[in-house]
Amino acid sequence: MTEYLFGIDVGGTTCKMGLFETDGTLLEKWEIKTETSDGGKAILPSLAASVDAKILERGISRDQVLGVGLGVPGPVTADGVIHGAVNLGWGDMAIADELSSLLGGITVKAGNDANVAALGESWMGAGKDYDDIVMVTLGTGIGGGIIINNQIIPGAHGAAGEIGHICANPHETEACGCGLHGCIEQYASATGFARMARRELTESTMPSSLREIPIDDITAKDVFDGAKAGDSLCQAVVEHVCDMLSTTIASICAVVNPEAVLIGGGVSKAGHILIEAIEGPFRQKAFKALRGTEIRLATLGNDAGIYGAARLVM
Amino acid sequence: MTEYLFGIDVGGTTCKMGLFETDGTLLEKWEIKTETSDGGKAILPSLAASVDAKILERGISRDQVLGVGLGVPGPVTADGVIHGAVNLGWGDMAIADELSSLLGGITVKAGNDANVAALGESWMGAGKDYDDIVMVTLGTGIGGGIIINNQIIPGAHGAAGEIGHICANPHETEACGCGLHGCIEQYASATGFARMARRELTESTMPSSLREIPIDDITAKDVFDGAKAGDSLCQAVVEHVCDMLSTTIASICAVVNPEAVLIGGGVSKAGHILIEAIEGPFRQKAFKALRGTEIRLATLGNDAGIYGAARLVM
Repeated sequence: MTEYLFGIDVGGTTCKMGLFETDGTLLEKWEIKTETSDGGKAILPSLAASVDAKILERGISRDQVLGVGLGVPGPVTADGVIHGAVNLGWGDMAIADELSSLLGGITVKAGNDANVAALGESWMGAGKDYDDIVMVTLGTGIGGGIIINNQIIPGAHGAAGEIGHICANPHETEACGCGLHGCIEQYASATGFARMARRELTESTMPSSLREIPIDDITAKDVFDGAKAGDSLCQAVVEHVCDMLSTTIASICAVVNPEAVLIGGGVSKAGHILIEAIEGPFRQKAFKALRGTEIRLATLGNDAGIYGAARLVM
Repeated sequence: MTEYLFGIDVGGTTCKMGLFETDGTLLEKWEIKTETSDGGKAILPSLAASVDAKILERGISRDQVLGVGLGVPGPVTADGVIHGAVNLGWGDMAIADELSSLLGGITVKAGNDANVAALGESWMGAGKDYDDIVMVTLGTGIGGGIIINNQIIPGAHGAAGEIGHICANPHETEACGCGLHGCIEQYASATGFARMARRELTESTMPSSLREIPIDDITAKDVFDGAKAGDSLCQAVVEHVCDMLSTTIASICAVVNPEAVLIGGGVSKAGHILIEAIEGPFRQKAFKALRGTEIRLATLGNDAGIYGAARLVM
């Protein structure tokens, strides 16, 4: 009897959904809108309806469904309880249990979206060959996930892998979105790279192709494109920020000593230049026993979340 | 049938040994000399002889011995292989398997000494009420251990918990023992507190009781004794160093989000003043979800290693 897994990645605007076989084959993926109005009450029912419809459409029997996994943007503890998700309007909620009863008792597991994406990469992506990985997701912010023995470390309050808020510069004057000062997210996220470029453009008189772009429109992609084209200012920003990021990654490695660190998220589309800029200082500044840690680009892109959610069930 | 565990903490000068019941009762502890000459060849045989002698002395049958646990000063991977221990003269060695065959097949488990001490505190010490803890050992250097679900995270190269080498100050000019610059060990270890006091005495003209001590004889204990007695310079050193340490602890918590952080090692004999000096800045500077993490003094002192070694077997 073929068995199936559903993997769902709940975002602030859409929910990505995937139907998988247990060997990791993605049979089909689709999206539904995230209904965040009225405290996000309609989200779980609409997910249940979509799963039910897919079961019907495919002619799958309910006992062929091994379970449904859920990645959500907020802290989730090992018991499947989310402790608030601002983007969805949710407070504390036993989402795994609730979705399970909406689905007539099908097993449901839940995890934080960044942790779940890490699990996806560990299962079928760049982490496939390893048991212990750390994933660093460089998006609008910075998220992360710690996978040990192919399982997520969720943390006592669901906040393990919140590596974006590791302090990289105690002397920073601007505040991070979280209210602290000097979080690595302020430098190495997409917005961080842009901020550091703006700062460099303002503070130096170095010529740069970035000066042709309205300063508030500069993106991380512009910075990396400039660096690839040989623009010295862009190269200096990439070098400086990746040096800071490599120190943070060295700190993370000193805690859990993974086999590999995977770099994902929008910023990672910059490709190999990013890995090189991180690896160089990392190989010099990490504690000796940690210097051999592999640093790699994540490979599943936006699908990491649905893969990881499906894997949660196994 | 009563079952027994042996816990052994191998140090550079002595091996501490303990005989335990499975409920954590320490029946007896003793020490033997560590024979580091000739590449440390005699260490495992002398441990085996001591275990055998104790079994005989106590009239325990060999099948009542559940196993022998070993904490050793070097990186140990999950397979019980140590990857070099400079203090013992050891290179790479399958110590768990070797000691097991010396003991006629009794189960032997091995771990890094700092990790094993963390496990001891987690089992029968200050971490008893938690499943997930981080232990920070402030000794001559700084060691640590990460315990998740009551088990050690050893790390891919046996280097998880090497938190002494997290960078606390990228601008440090003096080198750490490991060759890097700015490791937290340079500030918050026993030698670190003394170094920072010497630096403060040299750079400032502030009066201090420490000025009555020959500058090279100043110890961490002198600094804490001064701080407790109201000496402003000592208080400033404690405050500054503990502020740095709290940032490092906040970083560690952002990775694994434990329920509690336990502070052990010689420096922790300073007592509650140390916890207060760490907790104050931690509650302000940790990421919001992590601020509730308990920070506590370890309670087993030098026995943490034998407790944790025994617990390894279970």
